[in-house]
Amino acid sequence: MATVDTSLPAHPTGAAATLAASHASEHDLKLYGGWFCPFVQRAWIVLHEKDIPHQYIEINPYHKAPEFLALNPRGLVPTLAVPTASSNGKAAKPLYESSIICEYLDEAYGDDSAALLPRGKENVYERARCRLWIEHVGSKIVPAFYKFLQHTPEKDYTIEEARENFLGHIKAFVKEMGDGANGGPWFLGDRFSLVDVMLAPWAKRMFLIDHYKPGGVGIPTAGEDEGVWKRWGVWFDAITQRKSVLETWSDDEMYIAAYKRYAEDTTQSEVAKATRKGGRLP
Amino acid sequence: MATVDTSLPAHPTGAAATLAASHASEHDLKLYGGWFCPFVQRAWIVLHEKDIPHQYIEINPYHKAPEFLALNPRGLVPTLAVPTASSNGKAAKPLYESSIICEYLDEAYGDDSAALLPRGKENVYERARCRLWIEHVGSKIVPAFYKFLQHTPEKDYTIEEARENFLGHIKAFVKEMGDGANGGPWFLGDRFSLVDVMLAPWAKRMFLIDHYKPGGVGIPTAGEDEGVWKRWGVWFDAITQRKSVLETWSDDEMYIAAYKRYAEDTTQSEVAKATRKGGRLP
Repeated sequence: MATVDTSLPAHPTGAAATLAASHASEHDLKLYGGWFCPFVQRAWIVLHEKDIPHQYIEINPYHKAPEFLALNPRGLVPTLAVPTASSNGKAAKPLYESSIICEYLDEAYGDDSAALLPRGKENVYERARCRLWIEHVGSKIVPAFYKFLQHTPEKDYTIEEARENFLGHIKAFVKEMGDGANGGPWFLGDRFSLVDVMLAPWAKRMFLIDHYKPGGVGIPTAGEDEGVWKRWGVWFDAITQRKSVLETWSDDEMYIAAYKRYAEDTTQSEVAKATRKGGRLP
Repeated sequence: MATVDTSLPAHPTGAAATLAASHASEHDLKLYGGWFCPFVQRAWIVLHEKDIPHQYIEINPYHKAPEFLALNPRGLVPTLAVPTASSNGKAAKPLYESSIICEYLDEAYGDDSAALLPRGKENVYERARCRLWIEHVGSKIVPAFYKFLQHTPEKDYTIEEARENFLGHIKAFVKEMGDGANGGPWFLGDRFSLVDVMLAPWAKRMFLIDHYKPGGVGIPTAGEDEGVWKRWGVWFDAITQRKSVLETWSDDEMYIAAYKRYAEDTTQSEVAKATRKGGRLP
């Protein structure tokens, strides 16, 4: 039990505490989350963006509630309890995997004008292109983030390699962005979408790399890719100030405390173990 | 160049050759593929299932065609060239990642009755559930397949562990299947879907494990999970005899030749290297 982060608060703080408190009442649609988890924040952002009535339940990772484990025996957050019609009223069914939860919420709630993935036959290629870059976030940028944050001098790669790897995957992403000058800062230009949501929690956590790693994130400010990094800056400023992102965020210092073990590469979390092993994130 | 599989045919054989020949004419929608690649077969199955007019272009992995690399500089198969409207007529845009290509094709072609993922608001939970199990195929079953096939006595895991791991992930999948007695053998019962498509190429390749590995796949025929394995058998027989699966399949002995280097764990393919490293599949 020596590895348990018992010094961390068991509940959200700051703005996220206010949001959680306003969604504490019983509701059929439940998000089981953890204030500190970026995958949870994705789902929470979508609930907030679309103003979806729901109940937020904070899960203590060391004492998981029995009704939560009954719904999802794997016990992973985020898990969404979805009310579905059944022969005797409503039965809750589980969804997990943050990107699947987000796409579900987007499809199940709101009309086409509020959709976070473009809908309809006329947008079928654009929708697939969004999925490609959502996949890029999950399979390239997110693992590179942890590889960077968990770098220690004992690793078989240098911090410069970790930085170059991370920035390279971001650069590929930025090059696919719509034109920021053309009415908006988002991946799709003036239209906020799930692509933005998917990367938002890690954009918000990049200050941890500045805090813990020598040289920090190191976004270039000049050079041949100056235009790319300017476009990144426009997106970054917009996403880190987005209301739904700010209001699902606890106090900065809580993340600094929570990620200390990541930065020292001693955490026992599944995501950290997978990164050390070089395996796929859970 | 010693590692290049130059002894392999450069084109599909058997039934797949017939299908490729019937889709050799110029067409705006192009699938760039490789006869031997299971990820390509996923996309090819969907084109066949939905009877979508297209051109099939076999890519020689050692001499990639310039127009293919211009479309997708990463040079991975499958890549789909999608005709999209542009200011000067039609421009081809690329899609890659087999599951994204398949969902695109399903959304872009055919009416609701032919959909391979259930459509509409009333099916939104079922659609998300399908995506969960598509994710399970890609992140659990497929890596376990390669870990099993690429097992050698030098590995840090035993072949029994590789088998147990593979069968465990299949068992979890089968337990989520609709009732085969209730009108059909598929994951969704009587409805064939993308979930079936996603696993089909590896189901079809399981005979390679029987061919190359002592003890073979080793599906249990008795014991506490007898019902699960019976249900698996119903699905397996149905999928491996499905017309779209058979007609995208080359001659068995070509796969035996092609996968020899996997079975001996000496292949230089991206998927094999990722499996050896314990990393995510490309």
